[in-house]
Amino acid sequence: MSTFNVELKRVVDDSYDIEVGFELSAKLVKDIKNGLVGNIKKFAVITDSIVKELYADPIAGMLSAEGYTVDVFSFPEGEKSKTRETKEFVEDSMLSKGYRRDCCIIAVGGGVVTDLGGFVAGTYGRGVPFINFATTLLAAADASVGGKTAVDTPLATNLIGIFNQPEKVYIDIAAWKTLPPRQLYSGMAETIKHACLADRELFDYLNENMDKIYSIDSEACEYIAEKNCRIKYDVVMKDERESGLREVLNLGHTVGRAIETVSDYRLLHGEAVSIGLVAEVKLSNKLGYVTEDEMNSVIALLNKANLPTSIPDYIDREALVKKLYTDKKVRNGHLRFVLQNGIGDVVQFGENVFATPISEDVAREIIMDF
Amino acid sequence: MSTFNVELKRVVDDSYDIEVGFELSAKLVKDIKNGLVGNIKKFAVITDSIVKELYADPIAGMLSAEGYTVDVFSFPEGEKSKTRETKEFVEDSMLSKGYRRDCCIIAVGGGVVTDLGGFVAGTYGRGVPFINFATTLLAAADASVGGKTAVDTPLATNLIGIFNQPEKVYIDIAAWKTLPPRQLYSGMAETIKHACLADRELFDYLNENMDKIYSIDSEACEYIAEKNCRIKYDVVMKDERESGLREVLNLGHTVGRAIETVSDYRLLHGEAVSIGLVAEVKLSNKLGYVTEDEMNSVIALLNKANLPTSIPDYIDREALVKKLYTDKKVRNGHLRFVLQNGIGDVVQFGENVFATPISEDVAREIIMDF
Repeated sequence: MSTFNVELKRVVDDSYDIEVGFELSAKLVKDIKNGLVGNIKKFAVITDSIVKELYADPIAGMLSAEGYTVDVFSFPEGEKSKTRETKEFVEDSMLSKGYRRDCCIIAVGGGVVTDLGGFVAGTYGRGVPFINFATTLLAAADASVGGKTAVDTPLATNLIGIFNQPEKVYIDIAAWKTLPPRQLYSGMAETIKHACLADRELFDYLNENMDKIYSIDSEACEYIAEKNCRIKYDVVMKDERESGLREVLNLGHTVGRAIETVSDYRLLHGEAVSIGLVAEVKLSNKLGYVTEDEMNSVIALLNKANLPTSIPDYIDREALVKKLYTDKKVRNGHLRFVLQNGIGDVVQFGENVFATPISEDVAREIIMDF
Repeated sequence: MSTFNVELKRVVDDSYDIEVGFELSAKLVKDIKNGLVGNIKKFAVITDSIVKELYADPIAGMLSAEGYTVDVFSFPEGEKSKTRETKEFVEDSMLSKGYRRDCCIIAVGGGVVTDLGGFVAGTYGRGVPFINFATTLLAAADASVGGKTAVDTPLATNLIGIFNQPEKVYIDIAAWKTLPPRQLYSGMAETIKHACLADRELFDYLNENMDKIYSIDSEACEYIAEKNCRIKYDVVMKDERESGLREVLNLGHTVGRAIETVSDYRLLHGEAVSIGLVAEVKLSNKLGYVTEDEMNSVIALLNKANLPTSIPDYIDREALVKKLYTDKKVRNGHLRFVLQNGIGDVVQFGENVFATPISEDVAREIIMDF
């Protein structure tokens, strides 16, 4: 018997820039010409059926005009496309077009596209570089920092994936103008979540500037895009492997993800998170961490953002409770919730513990009651 | 327009031990009890239909007896199982058994099992720890060092995967006794490859001790298992991302992989590599890097190892040439080959360049000629 030690200690630098601005397509192409991804000549642009014409095709056209080899790979828009099947479709399309390890992926779109594009990049040829060109507020809030990529499976949301950092992220605020209003509002839910869990100042700013943001005022939009990145960065940097602190980002998501599934995706992700934020601020209030006034101002801000704050009639509330409490995460009949501590903070329950077990009875009471 | 820098520079330590010995199942269980993977209590044992009864079930039984939760997930033996479909099957089976992020995967088997198990581990919950319990000579030679995990797709071998390092590797030489002789011989091809490209001493040792190894003499088997790890480690350590030096490990694999595919997997991987080694040493001889005597001693060693050294009659040689030269890796009609420089060394063609372009005509001549 003998032992051989494989020593693999090394410094990894996955640092990257996030650029926030208006009309960034030309900047992306310029950065690539200037060596953003070395001397790679072959680019796979991954996008969805909506963003394809608006941004992906124009970007591909510009790259092509500069002499790069480019193909656009697109799949139907929406959360239902975030599957292993779509990943296979993109991989097989890239393979049949001759893409090998010497390529770069550019994910152009919202959170579904960047989540899927980053995952494809991470496993294609055991990893090729990728760039995120985020066209939605949701992607700006959710997908720019943290390196989480994933697909959904029938049995679990976001459970199959990897941590994978992009070469650069572009947040093109001009693209928000092309969003259907419902999509724009949906993205606001994650921004409000960030305000609720970490930043009272942002909360107040949103209260005062919602109209400006929704009319895509450049200054206001840049401000919230950057705030989103900053808040998420502060949380993620302190806890890269989701061992504790990062859990705070689940605020509103415990109920949110369940209701998204029970609605069979009739609710957009942000809409579901909005309802989840209401449920969880009610719970925080019930347990004494949030005053009546604070609770009402959270609900009022969600209303101002045109987000749903009550459970739609078509949702079977009993099915929702059941969905929550038959989930495998439930231990001994208790599901863990992140709770707000006033506005701009969360409750810490112990060292690295930011979620607390809530019994089915208490959760049912909250859900039946609004 | 503004830019936000996400700083992600950190020290990563993926070091691990390889333990070589006889009957290591009990040692594995003991290591787990002693905290090899922290206080994880849930283990998914991934294996194939042959190894299941021989090793996976007994290991699962021992872990279960120690109070751990264990399930065995098995798929049909053979290279044809190394697919995205098998990966999905294992994932869905694990999900439906309630496996979440707090589990560890133990891959028990040969190269197919460890390649697939490491890939499943890397993307399950965005990464759970895994342990390789290698039961074949091939896995000892090929899968213990380098962190390569992957699946095959209809359009490409090993192109979808990730780099992922195990917590520990066990090379259980006792398991080699249970291998069908053809499998044992097949594993020897990678060992001979290592000798040809890096270690004249190992080449001579194999020449003198083949009988001992094939009768699973403990000392001889430990010697070659360790030599395999050492050679691969030296190459891989110097070049983790396969940018240059690591290419030398492709010796025999350019023709080998093509003939494996053209045979529709009638040839085992090592058998195909053996034929590939013959083709590439003939090429090395033709180009003046290997003498007639050296070439003949390589072929003689492969023969001594009961490996094929000629192209089987059922292979269409013209189809083989076509397979090689229509591959997308071919640029300007030239395919790149690693060439031996005598025995125990390879030809270096430039800084970090260890493969040279060979035209279709030259390759055809070699392939038609033996």
